[in-house]
Amino acid sequence: MRSFEMKNRTSAEDIKCLRLITAIKTPYLPDGRFDLEAYDDLVNVQIVNGAEGIIVGGTTGEGQLMSWDEHIMLIGHTVNCFGGKIKVIGNTGSNSTREAIHASEQGFAVGMHAALHINPYYGKTSLNGLVSHFDSVLSMGPTIIYNVPSRTGQDIPPSVIQTLTQSANLAGVKECVGNERIKHYTGNGIVVWSGNDDQCHDARWGFGATGVISVTSNLIPGIMRELMFGGKNPTLNAKIMPLVDWLFQEPNPIGLNTALAQLGVVRPVFRLPYVPLPLGKRMEFVKLVKEIGREHFVGEKDVEVLDDDDFILIGRY
Amino acid sequence: MRSFEMKNRTSAEDIKCLRLITAIKTPYLPDGRFDLEAYDDLVNVQIVNGAEGIIVGGTTGEGQLMSWDEHIMLIGHTVNCFGGKIKVIGNTGSNSTREAIHASEQGFAVGMHAALHINPYYGKTSLNGLVSHFDSVLSMGPTIIYNVPSRTGQDIPPSVIQTLTQSANLAGVKECVGNERIKHYTGNGIVVWSGNDDQCHDARWGFGATGVISVTSNLIPGIMRELMFGGKNPTLNAKIMPLVDWLFQEPNPIGLNTALAQLGVVRPVFRLPYVPLPLGKRMEFVKLVKEIGREHFVGEKDVEVLDDDDFILIGRY
Amino acid sequence: MRSFEMKNRTSAEDIKCLRLITAIKTPYLPDGRFDLEAYDDLVNVQIVNGAEGIIVGGTTGEGQLMSWDEHIMLIGHTVNCFGGKIKVIGNTGSNSTREAIHASEQGFAVGMHAALHINPYYGKTSLNGLVSHFDSVLSMGPTIIYNVPSRTGQDIPPSVIQTLTQSANLAGVKECVGNERIKHYTGNGIVVWSGNDDQCHDARWGFGATGVISVTSNLIPGIMRELMFGGKNPTLNAKIMPLVDWLFQEPNPIGLNTALAQLGVVRPVFRLPYVPLPLGKRMEFVKLVKEIGREHFVGEKDVEVLDDDDFILIGRY
Amino acid sequence: MRSFEMKNRTSAEDIKCLRLITAIKTPYLPDGRFDLEAYDDLVNVQIVNGAEGIIVGGTTGEGQLMSWDEHIMLIGHTVNCFGGKIKVIGNTGSNSTREAIHASEQGFAVGMHAALHINPYYGKTSLNGLVSHFDSVLSMGPTIIYNVPSRTGQDIPPSVIQTLTQSANLAGVKECVGNERIKHYTGNGIVVWSGNDDQCHDARWGFGATGVISVTSNLIPGIMRELMFGGKNPTLNAKIMPLVDWLFQEPNPIGLNTALAQLGVVRPVFRLPYVPLPLGKRMEFVKLVKEIGREHFVGEKDVEVLDDDDFILIGRY
Repeated sequence: MRSFEMKNRTSAEDIKCLRLITAIKTPYLPDGRFDLEAYDDLVNVQIVNGAEGIIVGGTTGEGQLMSWDEHIMLIGHTVNCFGGKIKVIGNTGSNSTREAIHASEQGFAVGMHAALHINPYYGKTSLNGLVSHFDSVLSMGPTIIYNVPSRTGQDIPPSVIQTLTQSANLAGVKECVGNERIKHYTGNGIVVWSGNDDQCHDARWGFGATGVISVTSNLIPGIMRELMFGGKNPTLNAKIMPLVDWLFQEPNPIGLNTALAQLGVVRPVFRLPYVPLPLGKRMEFVKLVKEIGREHFVGEKDVEVLDDDDFILIGRY
Repeated sequence: MRSFEMKNRTSAEDIKCLRLITAIKTPYLPDGRFDLEAYDDLVNVQIVNGAEGIIVGGTTGEGQLMSWDEHIMLIGHTVNCFGGKIKVIGNTGSNSTREAIHASEQGFAVGMHAALHINPYYGKTSLNGLVSHFDSVLSMGPTIIYNVPSRTGQDIPPSVIQTLTQSANLAGVKECVGNERIKHYTGNGIVVWSGNDDQCHDARWGFGATGVISVTSNLIPGIMRELMFGGKNPTLNAKIMPLVDWLFQEPNPIGLNTALAQLGVVRPVFRLPYVPLPLGKRMEFVKLVKEIGREHFVGEKDVEVLDDDDFILIGRY
Repeated sequence: MRSFEMKNRTSAEDIKCLRLITAIKTPYLPDGRFDLEAYDDLVNVQIVNGAEGIIVGGTTGEGQLMSWDEHIMLIGHTVNCFGGKIKVIGNTGSNSTREAIHASEQGFAVGMHAALHINPYYGKTSLNGLVSHFDSVLSMGPTIIYNVPSRTGQDIPPSVIQTLTQSANLAGVKECVGNERIKHYTGNGIVVWSGNDDQCHDARWGFGATGVISVTSNLIPGIMRELMFGGKNPTLNAKIMPLVDWLFQEPNPIGLNTALAQLGVVRPVFRLPYVPLPLGKRMEFVKLVKEIGREHFVGEKDVEVLDDDDFILIGRY
Repeated sequence: MRSFEMKNRTSAEDIKCLRLITAIKTPYLPDGRFDLEAYDDLVNVQIVNGAEGIIVGGTTGEGQLMSWDEHIMLIGHTVNCFGGKIKVIGNTGSNSTREAIHASEQGFAVGMHAALHINPYYGKTSLNGLVSHFDSVLSMGPTIIYNVPSRTGQDIPPSVIQTLTQSANLAGVKECVGNERIKHYTGNGIVVWSGNDDQCHDARWGFGATGVISVTSNLIPGIMRELMFGGKNPTLNAKIMPLVDWLFQEPNPIGLNTALAQLGVVRPVFRLPYVPLPLGKRMEFVKLVKEIGREHFVGEKDVEVLDDDDFILIGRY
């Protein structure tokens, strides 16, 4: 596709240099539809605090709970409103190659700057199948490959990534296996973002990672920016570890969803199968916010515990 | 929805002043998917020749043959590539109120400047039902109501339009019933675009119409611009009448699709139930082009007759 | 497709002999989803009273307000529950050839006995396009072609029907243009069902029609059975004319939906753009029921006027 | 939902007694659509050889590569053609609760006898979330819960299953964790099917499992029937182990798809991301068939190696 404006002309090189990418939360209205006003606020606060890219509809953004038309609409909306200020990376991956192809075509057509692609989770496939799957989408535009065996049930081995480097569209890898794997890649000239907030400081400063694709930056974008740009800072990193541990005690984005509701920046609405953390954990979060400092967190309201009854859980939307 | 960039802040007033709006053709690849590269060229030639708005996925653009996700993607794509240079009006109407609501929400979310809404064709409804239907979508943004009884089987009477004027979002009416109806509206301060290319010159200069939503401008945008901006010009208007008659001898966009393929600006691919005009009619078109002047038509190749075998008709896509 | 049970082996001949086919109403739950329990009751009362076929998701059943997956599900459900007792004719027509192909394949796969196909309403096409459209689906199984220009904006002329008779799957035509047209077909050996309840008695006994595809039979199936099977009966026919006139004063199924709610057999839930008849008209219906006799109508509750507040109108479902 | 025919009145008890359930393969036409004729043959051969239930659109049947309308259509088709002869269990599970609710409603509406439900793979959730997810669908009809952590990345612990036993609709568990886990359940009166073909003989005769939900039975239904019904038979079990090992050397259904194509009962068409086993492995399969005996395998053609070029891999369908 050719277009007559410039903003879509993103190359893999434009993606490779991003240090702080936030896997942005998708907030909901009480009937389960997107709360685009709250969403726009969330994105804006990322821009203001120095995030350089966002993942739209990642696992954090609950792309797995969207219909594809919602998902592409959200990508298009984000490009339209913020595409000049932040790189918009659409999670157009799927365990179905057909869906990945269709969504990636549509995502690039509405202007996303890059695609995030997961290996086929749940259904899985052979190594040859992995390569065929990724080859089906790599020609479309800049692409980040996402490896998270704890979700997919299958590791993407370095041999597969090595094969994919033949495409100029491969921007790099979001890697969750650990910093040794990251070191292997960066030692071979492959760009990597840490997918683990607890390891990202070390990944960045000790193992060659370009940066992080972060969940925690939804809450404390300024601190995450500092950790990625400000040089080695084990003190600051240690300071946020209790928060990171709290966030990931249950499968993400359960902790994040709970926290953002407590901070008053999203309505306390959950699409099932996600449910909020229980009362005790919510009390812990209030304490964590006070320890780190409310001013480092997004939003301007007082952090609240919230009652169980404040939460709306939705199965039909 | 609130956004942090300005380009979506379109008001009904911004729409009311448009004189030349083109109901843009959607071109296809041989497998029936959108040919976005050809599409971008078509839109660009409209911009270059002075069209001020386009209808995306109208009946001319074959919205009725799109899935909604294709349709919204095309709106988002158009906004993303051309939204700064031309007003993008999405045909997010439907005979199903649910679909009209859903598509309009998504269309405005991806940045369309206005919506075009048809009354419920085929299924039809009562006058009270018409008002309920339009009320369901008018709050979302600037809206043009489209009246074409020859397609819908039901006229939208002036009483319904009058009721809808209570909404500040009503930009105006695309009216196909004729110039007397147009005069009635414009006499009452309601903005109208003629939906009939054969009547639009008179509508504009004699009956108070603001302009035209045109099919013919896909072919000769410069002449249509002149007819809408250049003052009364019955000679020029008469000159194009044979072309207009040729275009509408079969239900639109059959003539337009055939013509654009002959002009070499789109591939000769038809989504069924549309089929090309027969050979004899195609020979007539070549003659018409020569009479009006090739230079007034879009594209730069020689106009061709094309063989029957050149056309690809697609039912599964 | 081959299957190992017999029930799907329906031929066009099995369809041609049906005299009373009801275009069955689709009832809704308060949230707009199908009320399958009420639906099953409606179908059962048709079987008990001698209807031989039903149209699922016709314009009366509001197929135009269904998503295709709902529509196919309802066909499959009906086949599964009632396929041994009544012929299930799925309205898998569309103005998009792609949709008509996809829906017809799926409808036959889940066991429908025949398809109802409309010409491309709203978008319309040429006569060659009409033939191409119908040819795309006729090979799949027994098919009834539906002609209703007042909805589609385009008459299917006899020449097109004549061309389609080359397919052994053409069961016949549902014709709404009038009894002279019906006579033309039946004189040429083409099976026809009247699509106009006010003309069906004469069509059956005076113009050669095989029977009727009826809306009114949703209300008084026994009387409609008598009119189709019991021989010429102008007295009975005249007796129901005030009811038929009442039913079609607004676009169908507005009257039917209102009436069935008043009879207590469906919840008073309307999917927009349909809205109930106003109070005065509902009072008339109560009177009509008393004149014809409550015992001839479906349901066992007293007929009620209902308050405006009793009705639920739904745009999002 | 109430219906007037009996065949849908399936209780969890009717499911609990099934010993041999086949996770049936979905075969494709060269354009990637379902090959329903081949499918019907596959189901029929299961019935003839004594399978008592089939899983439609499981991971083996590649439900993860279907659109939901395809998936529900296939369930409806299977019920319609074979519902009187074999229990039809639809895999209407999803990692999205909304999708699981919608698909299960539709699946039961078209007559499936039971639903198979997976925990939310990839997105995952907390234990409370798991219970909420399953509670959203358990009320609809007989349900089998499916635990396969190697695919989902998350074990369903016995505590969750114990909670679900409060529903009379819980038919049992398809368990892939191993025979000790199975023993724990069967010791507590919970029905279990082994989800591992290599362990199912022992599960059935040594650990209390009711039976198996099998992949291998697609190939050798008679032998699997014997293993589940004929009493302890370690010799027979040992005889098929090389085949089972071959089948699962790559993520299922890669081996099965390859084998069925080699046996000539399905076309060699793969939906990506699945690709066939390489030539050397296909040669091994021919040898395995000869060792076990061609007559024990489905189909009647000679087993073939097939060339790489014989296979069609499809990403767009």
